[in-house]
Parts: sequence; structure tokens; C-alpha cells
Amino acid sequence: MSWWLEACKQPSIDAKQQAEAHQLQLTKPTGSLSELENTAVQLAALQNTVKPQVDLPWITIFAGDHGVMEENISAYPQAVTRQMLQNFTTGGACISVIAKEYQAKLQVIDCGSVGEAYEYAGVERYCIAQGTENFAKTVAMTEAQCLQALNLGRKSVEDAVAAGASIYVAGEMGIGNTCSASAVACFLLNEPAEKLTGVGTGIRAEQLAHKKQVIDQALALHRDYVENDAFKALCAVGGLEIAAMTGAYIRCAQLGMPMVVDGFITTVSALLAVRLNPAVRDWMLFGHQSAEYGHVRLLSELNANPLLKLNLRLGEGSGAGAALGVIRLACSLHNNMATFAQAAVIGEKV
Amino acid sequence: MSWWLEACKQPSIDAKQQAEAHQLQLTKPTGSLSELENTAVQLAALQNTVKPQVDLPWITIFAGDHGVMEENISAYPQAVTRQMLQNFTTGGACISVIAKEYQAKLQVIDCGSVGEAYEYAGVERYCIAQGTENFAKTVAMTEAQCLQALNLGRKSVEDAVAAGASIYVAGEMGIGNTCSASAVACFLLNEPAEKLTGVGTGIRAEQLAHKKQVIDQALALHRDYVENDAFKALCAVGGLEIAAMTGAYIRCAQLGMPMVVDGFITTVSALLAVRLNPAVRDWMLFGHQSAEYGHVRLLSELNANPLLKLNLRLGEGSGAGAALGVIRLACSLHNNMATFAQAAVIGEKV
Repeated sequence: MSWWLEACKQPSIDAKQQAEAHQLQLTKPTGSLSELENTAVQLAALQNTVKPQVDLPWITIFAGDHGVMEENISAYPQAVTRQMLQNFTTGGACISVIAKEYQAKLQVIDCGSVGEAYEYAGVERYCIAQGTENFAKTVAMTEAQCLQALNLGRKSVEDAVAAGASIYVAGEMGIGNTCSASAVACFLLNEPAEKLTGVGTGIRAEQLAHKKQVIDQALALHRDYVENDAFKALCAVGGLEIAAMTGAYIRCAQLGMPMVVDGFITTVSALLAVRLNPAVRDWMLFGHQSAEYGHVRLLSELNANPLLKLNLRLGEGSGAGAALGVIRLACSLHNNMATFAQAAVIGEKV
Repeated sequence: MSWWLEACKQPSIDAKQQAEAHQLQLTKPTGSLSELENTAVQLAALQNTVKPQVDLPWITIFAGDHGVMEENISAYPQAVTRQMLQNFTTGGACISVIAKEYQAKLQVIDCGSVGEAYEYAGVERYCIAQGTENFAKTVAMTEAQCLQALNLGRKSVEDAVAAGASIYVAGEMGIGNTCSASAVACFLLNEPAEKLTGVGTGIRAEQLAHKKQVIDQALALHRDYVENDAFKALCAVGGLEIAAMTGAYIRCAQLGMPMVVDGFITTVSALLAVRLNPAVRDWMLFGHQSAEYGHVRLLSELNANPLLKLNLRLGEGSGAGAALGVIRLACSLHNNMATFAQAAVIGEKV
């Protein structure tokens, strides 16, 4: 049996009920903190405690390059993937600033970028391949490569658990990866490119039309191989970083680590994870609703209502990272507000 | 001339342009941080600096009681207003926890609650009246009382400026005050109660129908007196805390202090402030979209798109307070992300 099919942990029903009962005692109109209450209660269930916390958040950025870049589907050149790897570790990237803001550990894993071997301080470099193959012409990854990428995600979560992390965020970097993510989403939802393809980092209208055409042709090319199998869809049109995040999400659920899903690309990984192992869904919080076209549809498929709706479309786990602040506040309110009894405030309605 | 008609400061066009140019240099796809970029740029203009910050946030809670409570329009008894005053200062209320989370100064001003004189440590007690009159029968406040309340708001902002605060949040506490706020909003927008009245802290359907009836009757009672005058609408059906927040918002704009507007009731004060002095609008950020029915309409009237949409309906400035975290992150990203040049990342699109 493949490791990703192994059972997930069960969230604690007992802790959930205790947290719900505690919320009813806090000095506020019943239910008036809505999503903040729901977040605290969900996290209580996942962390099996009446006092949830996000004191040690963990963020891993998975990077990978994409062969489909040959097809001219992105606004930025492929070299940016590697350039950003250094920017993550030297503190200048968006997610670096967010990690510092919320005292999160930032792990950076290069699953396979294009170029010569290198050593950047703080980057864990693997080279499953120098980017995927061009899925417009052949499968993006062999099944063996895809398995290696899933295993990188698994290892990352095991690192986080070993370090005592309280919540896990996966983010991605890979020029061209919205194209790959859209193609995977089309297979999973049985839709044409039109329904799930957006402008990514910001392509113009004619380039967007071309991107959709490339995806639709790839769907036709790989349909017989994929045959409604999520793992094969990932191999056919996915990316190394998309596979790694899928593995990470599954491992989170197996080890009982709450996770915060980010935007469009990570949500494709989240949907892959849930298709491979449905109980993974219980361990997911959703950080933000991206501006990328198609994200709303993916969220709806996962029955998810994200915390933030700030129109972000940056990637790097930035929306989930930003949501850590909201999650932290939700915990702080849950843990630190006075009860009606403590504050001698009338809690009964008239 | 009344002080609230005096000119507002002008946001800095120069700082705004510099901040916009700086955003274009940061290592991210152009515009990809959307609302976070807009927030940083707006704050740069308001603070007249290319490096905006919210290091010293200031939160003032204005409390007041409401004579219209005689009409059975709330889910909680009037005594809760005073009980919560103590809860604010002893740290158990939602806004107290938020203030601590974001190292904000929390000022608590009782503009006029029902009951005997008291001294609570940390509460600035004024007694303009022991609550307003019942606006179902007579004007809620005399014009002299309303002026006193506006002045309390003015003084609060002057305290914040003197303390070196970088951003100002007003919140409110007053059992029954959604009823008053809805009535004011109906006058300002020339609408019946049906369009702008919600469940407040959580009344049932039949009590909501009754609340609307009370408001519609009050609109008819006071229409001749109000005659489309915002100040008179405030006197007729407003509240002491609603007037105080109106005065505070106007003073913020006059002294060049950025403010974050909270939910339904504070947005009524914000609309009052803008009707009394339109240039006040430039100094407003909007913290959250409340679950209270009518808030979306008010936000639309002010052409506002709030940062958070968490379905909150607690009051106390809690949504604006929660938004301080997002605003702080927006500033941190603006100030601390690397530029393309610093990080040696290709910033030009292909």
C-alpha cells in the first residue's frame, strides 16, 4: 500500500465540544465572533486541547520549474524561480517578511529547478529533475518522480512535527505553475481550461487565450493515461512542487498537524490530497480566497470558506501566512476573554 | 462656525506617489498584494511618509445608554452597558484582548450610562445624561447634549495625537444602540427601517419586526424636526456614543490622524461625519464588513471595501481592532520586502 493511503488521525470531538461550550461563556453576544469562533473551535479539535494556539507556526516553500514554459504561458522568465529561492532565505520575499512577523519557521525546499547545481544557505536542494517535462508534449513527471516529490512533502511535515510546530503552511514558487495547476484542476473537476484558468502573475488577454489552448490540448493528449485517477493527473500535467505539497497535506492529516491552505495552486494540491485520501480534509483551514480565476470553484469543491479575501495573487503561501495573524487572534480571544461569571456580566438574554 | 465644519488636513499626494512607485519595485508580480498594497499606500499618504506604520495604535470605546430600550428592542438588558465598562478595563472584553495583542492604548469613555455615579479604574466617566431619552416619544438628545458628546470625541482624538498615536480606532458599547444607529441611517439615506435594521446582538424574528415598527414610527415623529439635516437626525434618534464617535472621526481628519472604521454603528457615525464634513472620508480605512443587516448598504454609500469579512457582529471596535493586524502586516511588507534590484530578481515581464 502507498503511504498516502494510510489512515489520518481523528480530530478530537471532545475538545471540540469543550471549546464550543467555552465560547458560549465568553462576554459577547452568542456567536458574534463567527469565523473567529469557528477557527478557534476547529483548531481546538485538531490540537486536542481546549486552548488552541499557533505559537510555533511552520511554513515550507516548495519550488519547482515547469517544462510547459516552452509554450510561452507566463509573464515572467523561468530564471525567476531560482532567483526567488535566494530571496526567500535572505528575507526579502513576501513570505519571508510574513514569517518574521509571525515568528514562523521558514523552510525552503527546491524540488527541482532548471539550472546547474548550486548551494544557497538555507535552501534544501533536491534535483528530482531540472523541472518537469513539457506536458504539452509528454507526461510532466514519471510516476517515480512524482513519488519522490510526494516524499519531499512528507519529510517536510515530519520535520515540522519533530520541531514541535503547532500549525503548517505550504507555499509554492515555480514560474509557470498556475498553468500546471489549472490543468490538474481540469482533470480533477472534469472541466475544460476555460473554467479554471486565470492570468497567473499577470498575462495579457491573448496570452491567456493561448494558455487555455495549451491546457485543452494537453487534456486531450493525456486523457487516456489519466483515466480519472488523481495520482496520474498529477504525473501527467502537475509539477514537482504541486506533488510535494500534496504529500505534505496528506502527511499533516496522518500525523495530526493542522494546516492552512493558501491560494489557487495550493488548493489544487489540497484537492489532490483529498482525492487521494478524503479524511485529509478535516485537517485543513483555508487562509484566503485568491484573485486567480478558478480558485472560488476549487474552494467550493472543498466546501471551504477562507478567512481572508484580500484579492491577493502572489503565491509563496502568502495568503495562508497572512491568515496566521487572524488565526492567532482567534486563539487569543478564545483563550483570554473573560467569561460572564468572571466578569460579572449578565449572559442571559432577556 | 461649529468646530466640526473646520477644514480637514490634506493627505500627501507626494507620499502616495512615492509609496506607489516603491510598491512597483518590490519582488512580487505587479499588483499581486492588492488590498495590502492599497492599504500601505493609503496610509503612506495619510501619515505623509513613504514608510507607513501602526506602531502606536489607539482605541477608544465610547459607551452610552439608550432610552429606546423602554420599547423592548434588544436581546440583552441595559445593565450590561455598565458591566462591560469594567470588563473593558480589567482586560476580559474582546477589544481588551485585541488591544493587548496589538499593543494598542485602550481608552474607555462613558458618555452617559444609566445608573448612580461610580468610579471604575480606567473609565473616564462623563454624565451628559443617564442615557438618551426614548426617541420613540421625544428627541433622544437636546442639541446642547449632542454638542457635548461630539466634544468628547474631539477630546479623545486630541488625547491620541498628544500621545503620538499612529492610527485611531473608535468602538462603541451601548445596549440598544443598533436600534438608534438604524434610525439615524434611515434618516441619512432616506429609507424605511426595513432596509437598514438588523438583529443586533441577536433578537428573534418577532422582536425584529417590532424593532422596525418602533423605528418607522420614530422616523415619522421626527421628520419635520430633522428636515434632512444630519446633525438634527443625530439629535433626534442618535446616541451619545454615536455622536462622540462622529466628533472623533471629524477631529481625526482635521488633525491628520488615520482612522479605522469598525462595523454597523461606527459606520453610521462615519456617514454622519462625512455628511457634516465631506473631506473626513479621505482619512478613513474600513476594518470589516459586519454581519449586521444594513452594513453593506452603508459601506456602499461610503464607497468602502473593508479589509476583513469575518461575519463579526460584536461591536466594541472589534472588527477594526482585528484589522489592525492586517494593516500592520501591510506596512511590514511595504517597508521590509526587497526590491528587484536588491534581490537581483528579474522584475521585467517577458
